[in-house]
Parts: sequence; structure tokens; C-alpha cells
Amino acid sequence: MIRRGFLGAVRLGQHRVLPGVPQVLPRLSPTSAFGSSTDSLVSRFCLEKMDLKDYALPNASWCPDMLNLYQEFLEKTKTDGWIKLPSFKSNRDHIQGLKLPFGLAVASDKSDWRIFTRCIQEEGRGYEYVIFFHPTKKKSICLFQPGPYLEGPPGFAHGGSVAALMDETFSKTAYLAGEGLFTVSLNIRFKNLIPVGSVAVLNVDVEKIEDQKLYMSCIAQSRDQQTVYAKCSGVFLQLQLEEESSP
Amino acid sequence: MIRRGFLGAVRLGQHRVLPGVPQVLPRLSPTSAFGSSTDSLVSRFCLEKMDLKDYALPNASWCPDMLNLYQEFLEKTKTDGWIKLPSFKSNRDHIQGLKLPFGLAVASDKSDWRIFTRCIQEEGRGYEYVIFFHPTKKKSICLFQPGPYLEGPPGFAHGGSVAALMDETFSKTAYLAGEGLFTVSLNIRFKNLIPVGSVAVLNVDVEKIEDQKLYMSCIAQSRDQQTVYAKCSGVFLQLQLEEESSP
Repeated sequence: MIRRGFLGAVRLGQHRVLPGVPQVLPRLSPTSAFGSSTDSLVSRFCLEKMDLKDYALPNASWCPDMLNLYQEFLEKTKTDGWIKLPSFKSNRDHIQGLKLPFGLAVASDKSDWRIFTRCIQEEGRGYEYVIFFHPTKKKSICLFQPGPYLEGPPGFAHGGSVAALMDETFSKTAYLAGEGLFTVSLNIRFKNLIPVGSVAVLNVDVEKIEDQKLYMSCIAQSRDQQTVYAKCSGVFLQLQLEEESSP
Repeated sequence: MIRRGFLGAVRLGQHRVLPGVPQVLPRLSPTSAFGSSTDSLVSRFCLEKMDLKDYALPNASWCPDMLNLYQEFLEKTKTDGWIKLPSFKSNRDHIQGLKLPFGLAVASDKSDWRIFTRCIQEEGRGYEYVIFFHPTKKKSICLFQPGPYLEGPPGFAHGGSVAALMDETFSKTAYLAGEGLFTVSLNIRFKNLIPVGSVAVLNVDVEKIEDQKLYMSCIAQSRDQQTVYAKCSGVFLQLQLEEESSP
């Protein structure tokens, strides 16, 4: 069943009182609110959840460039501090045992919820991507191969599909680097179209964390770095997830 | 078959020579290049194509708010100059008989290409939306009901799904209002989360057309206009579609 918004809207980026939700974003003290270390966030996030499919693994649709880059970064997970992030069907799986603060969480049900960037489950048709994160450098790399269901102009990825994956890569980076939970803003400049079936590499950096916000940048380019596809800056709001109490 | 980017990349927003594509965006004279009237663009775009499914029609998943708003705007198509835009599975269907200039078009094949915002075909699971366009006012309204495959935070639409639909609504508006073809930039500020299954109304205005670019704004809000979900500005590049020559 789809819940029809009975929660009301959730206000972002402003600390004001919202009708129906007592105080969504109260003025939290950064020192008390954001105490979780990157290491502890990463270890919780990357726990092996054996019953869940990880969609960020190679499949038959991956082109040689995608496979080679994946192997290259997988090597770096052994020697250079990079971590391959698992990618489950829904954010509900990523935050198992945690809940959104201030009553935002929707009661779990049996519906088929999907995180937008995993909405298409047929291999190679939609989003193929994998994110690697570096906790010390607070950087991420996302390898992205758009399929034919992501089309905009004939033969090329829709600008919106690129924007959405930038938002998603920001989102995972922001959470792991500093409990960034919600997108406040995205500013994207498109430079070149990404051909469907090719590989784009998204480089994300956390530029600064200030006033409960994470400021990030992203550049999407071809594997050889000769073609810049798009540049983006994003701001995310910090908000701490709460431990779920036992039933 | 997915074409693997042999066309090379297509440079946007800059009039420079690109290797492999002689001159993607030459300095066109606006008077000679953009001679098609809004009326002629609209009549071509809205031609009844009986063999194609229009996805912008009510289905069993639409909630009462969505249905009521749809009916309201459908009435305005009879009296107030609004036009309901058809929405086909692929942009290839929208531009039948036309091709992208400068060799950008990919040869048609039998693959299942889908425009990103119609990537999920199960009713109610992904994007449900319909765009109404007003040629004289150069405005659009998009009614949007996000399904559970568009999730970001549990129970709410992914910021990227909202960004993508804003881009798509801009895209259709830009084309019909002034042959705007490619997104140059998107600046989005998110204010409140959109609950899955609820309705958001996107109001798009063309602010100005200058230097072969269309400048547009969008505000997404609840039906009662009491909640602003997001605001966005977008710039699109004008580029004229060419008539396909007979085989």
C-alpha cells in the first residue's frame, strides 16, 4: 500500500516549526548531535547483510571499461583505504535498525519499495553503478553505465538521470562522511552528453562541513578524463539517525 | 543493441569544435535558425499518433487529487488555451520524422529505448505525471504522483526523481516554447520532502529567451499551495531539429 502523505511534508534546510510535525529540524548542537565517527558509520553501513542482494556487483551487462575500472578500484580497497559500498534495493535496508528522527519514518510494510536509482532491476537496462568511498579523504568515486531506459536525447542519458545519480552519490557520501541526510540544493552544469552504454566516472569530494551542512562537489567525466560530462555542487543537511527501540 | 558511444561526446553550451564531430554547435543566427513558431511546434508535437501509447492518461493508480487536478486542467484545454501534451515511451516517438542536427541521431533499431521518466511501466510504481502547456503564456503545469520505486528517504520521493522530472518538464516546455533541446544547467533548492503517493504540482515558466538559450523557473508545491517542495531554475540550449530526408 502506498501511504498517502499523512505525515505531511518535511521541511528541509530551515529550522522552523511545521504544522503537524512539532519541530522537524530543531537547532541541534553539532557537538552533541554529530558524534558518530566516519569509521563507525562505515562499519554499520557496510555490514554484510547476507539476505540482501547487493546491486553494485558486476553483471553480464557491464562493458569492458566498467569491469576494468571496477577491478581497479577493488584493488584499491585492499591497499589504499577505499571501501566498496553495498547497494541494496531500498534505503530501508541500508538503515536497518535505525530510524529517521522526528517521526519521519514510515512504518515498514510488505510493499515493494525501491530506491530510485535501483528502480529498474533488469540488468543493463537502467542504472548500473557502483560507489567506492574513502573515509579518510572523504571522497567517493561512482562508476556509472547508463542503460537504454535512462534515455533523454536519442542514444544519450537523460540529464535528469545524471542529476539523480549525482544526488544519490552525494547522499551516500554525505551520510558516511558526516551524517548528511537530506539534499538541500543541487547546482548542475551539463557540458557533454553521456552516450548510453558508455561509462562515466563521478568524482565526489566533501569540500566542507559547516553549520550542520555538508558542501560537496562532483565532476562526471569519461574514463580517460578527456571529456567532462557534467559538474555539480550539492549541499546536504546533517541529521542524526536514531537507534530503533526494541519492540 | 546499445551503441557504445562511438559518436563521441556532444558538447553543450559552448560553440567549440569537438574531435570527431566537426562543429557541434556552430554560431547559428537566431533569426534563420529558430524560425518555427510555437504553434507549428505544438501542432507537430501533439499530432495524434494512434499506434503509440500515451502514458499521460489517468489510470487506476491515480489518487483522487491527481484525477481532480487532471480534470480541472482538461477543462482548461477547452476554454483557456491549455494543451495536454502526449507522453510516449521514448523521445524517438516524439520527434518522429525529425532528427537531431550535426549527426547526433543514433540510427533507429529494435531495442527497447525508454525516456527516463517513463522507464517504469507498471502503473503507479514509478512516475505518474502529465504535462499541460500554454503556448501563449509559455508556461507548463506538471501533475506528479511519485510511486514507491521513486523512493529516497523511506516514504518520500528521492530528490533525484524530483530533479529529473523538473528537467523533463523544462525539456518539453523549452522545445515547444522555443526549440530548446539540451539542458545546460539546473539549480534546485529542496524545501520539503514529497510523500510517495501524494501529488505535487510543478509550475514552469519561461522567463526569457536570449543568446540561443531559454531561461526557465519551476516551483513544485502541494495542491493547496501551502507547501513548497522545491524550486528550480534551468537553462536550455536552442538547437533546431532537422527534417529527415526520405530514404
